[in-house]
Amino acid sequence: MRLVRVGEAGSETPGVLVDEGSFVNLSDVVDDFNEAFFASGALEGLSTVVAERVDAGRVESLDRRRFGAPIARPHQILCIGLNYSDHAAETGQAVPSEPILFTKSPNTLIGPNDDVIVPRLSEKTDWEVELGIVIGRRASYLSDEVEAHEAIAGYVLVNDVSERAWQIQRNGQWTKGKSAPTFNPAGPWLATKDEIGDVLALDMWLDIDGARRQTGSTSTMIFSPTFIVHYLSQFMVLEPGDLINTGTPPGVGMGMNPQVYLKGGETMTLGISRLGSQTQHVKAYSA
Amino acid sequence: MRLVRVGEAGSETPGVLVDEGSFVNLSDVVDDFNEAFFASGALEGLSTVVAERVDAGRVESLDRRRFGAPIARPHQILCIGLNYSDHAAETGQAVPSEPILFTKSPNTLIGPNDDVIVPRLSEKTDWEVELGIVIGRRASYLSDEVEAHEAIAGYVLVNDVSERAWQIQRNGQWTKGKSAPTFNPAGPWLATKDEIGDVLALDMWLDIDGARRQTGSTSTMIFSPTFIVHYLSQFMVLEPGDLINTGTPPGVGMGMNPQVYLKGGETMTLGISRLGSQTQHVKAYSA
Repeated sequence: MRLVRVGEAGSETPGVLVDEGSFVNLSDVVDDFNEAFFASGALEGLSTVVAERVDAGRVESLDRRRFGAPIARPHQILCIGLNYSDHAAETGQAVPSEPILFTKSPNTLIGPNDDVIVPRLSEKTDWEVELGIVIGRRASYLSDEVEAHEAIAGYVLVNDVSERAWQIQRNGQWTKGKSAPTFNPAGPWLATKDEIGDVLALDMWLDIDGARRQTGSTSTMIFSPTFIVHYLSQFMVLEPGDLINTGTPPGVGMGMNPQVYLKGGETMTLGISRLGSQTQHVKAYSA
Repeated sequence: MRLVRVGEAGSETPGVLVDEGSFVNLSDVVDDFNEAFFASGALEGLSTVVAERVDAGRVESLDRRRFGAPIARPHQILCIGLNYSDHAAETGQAVPSEPILFTKSPNTLIGPNDDVIVPRLSEKTDWEVELGIVIGRRASYLSDEVEAHEAIAGYVLVNDVSERAWQIQRNGQWTKGKSAPTFNPAGPWLATKDEIGDVLALDMWLDIDGARRQTGSTSTMIFSPTFIVHYLSQFMVLEPGDLINTGTPPGVGMGMNPQVYLKGGETMTLGISRLGSQTQHVKAYSA
């Protein structure tokens, strides 16, 4: 299944995609795709409901409607740094021996095609196409990667927007450059595991104003999604609905020579196989 | 006012302390001391309700009842590192030129006297008595420290429990050593600003098994609460109910020679003037 949240920001309707143009509205059986939903195990039974409604012709058109992020604001957004060997090389850093963890403020989450705002006084706002993991059940001290696989609800396309000066040049700890408003577009859909096939064979790309900047594949990830989920569960409790951004392939603005950063008026388009694509208009901050 | 949440974990009753032994139950007018509560501005009118109930004799005994954290699980827990010049010295690090920001998982929040669990495979679990700030309204790009003061709901005593090996020796980014279950005791109460007097003149202390380990005062903070809130609002949006741990004075286990860390069976007691005290029994992890 491909879970979506459709409608105006703050009042999205949960549903499941039927095809590119229509979806099954589930607002009468699902409050939201939030922590309580994933914790309840209701995802398991959803395909039956969806099939019944499709059979009965109970589908709605997506025409002109906004996609929200396919999950509600999560308990936490965790991020893995330098998780592609070729991206580590472009930033001049060593391949990590174990996952680098940092966080984003959960309120950075926005829809896949919402505007991205260059923050006030920012000079180094950058892009990062990434595979996001959505946690499906509470996960603590998982025994192995099999348990980690079971704890994953599915995957989502994200843009891990980053302010490089704030991340790196403002006294350490990357969180400071990862948490500005609008810095985490996600969607258009959450693909459940059965929908995704081999998660380590997905193509990734990102364009700025139509010029290709990032080209990659999840096949060059250093730490796989199941490795990451098992690993993180040794340090903290992952809650249902938590989002984990798993790192970006080469081609970020910081890695270009000379470095290039986002400006108001530009357009980002990005995608991952089986996870759809996003288009964000970049806006300069205004009070 | 001193806001409290009283009762079993997960079903605490919100109220306001009358004295050390009794409180006004507000469960009929307040759902919880959570983001929606602070966002609503309901804190403003609470003292009238409390005064009426005290006059009417509508108070309840606290006898033997558990304190929860005085706020519900927040949107985010932000932490400032090395914010006391003498603590920076004991860890061998320079006084920061601007605040160091890191985060804890919000689900680390527990009551002030709940057990603290030394995580599985941990060898360096440490203590940190800290002043916590609770945000009272949405704060983005605040103009100055006057606005920052207005954005603060009040203050709370916290223990910023930390796993030093995971924080420092496991590939950077302190979050990894700050987010284990039970790592953020808070309370017993949230003191509103009028209750606290001069926030930069509060004594702080922490004992392990009755031996004094930390002695300090908020007077030696490098960055004040209003400086911190104004500063953070330039990088991210602070939500109502967000918790900010503002750093610890000298005396942590990592700073001792030889270094000393927590073991199951020990007891932490800690306090800050006007914010009460906490007692946590330390337990070794068991499956």
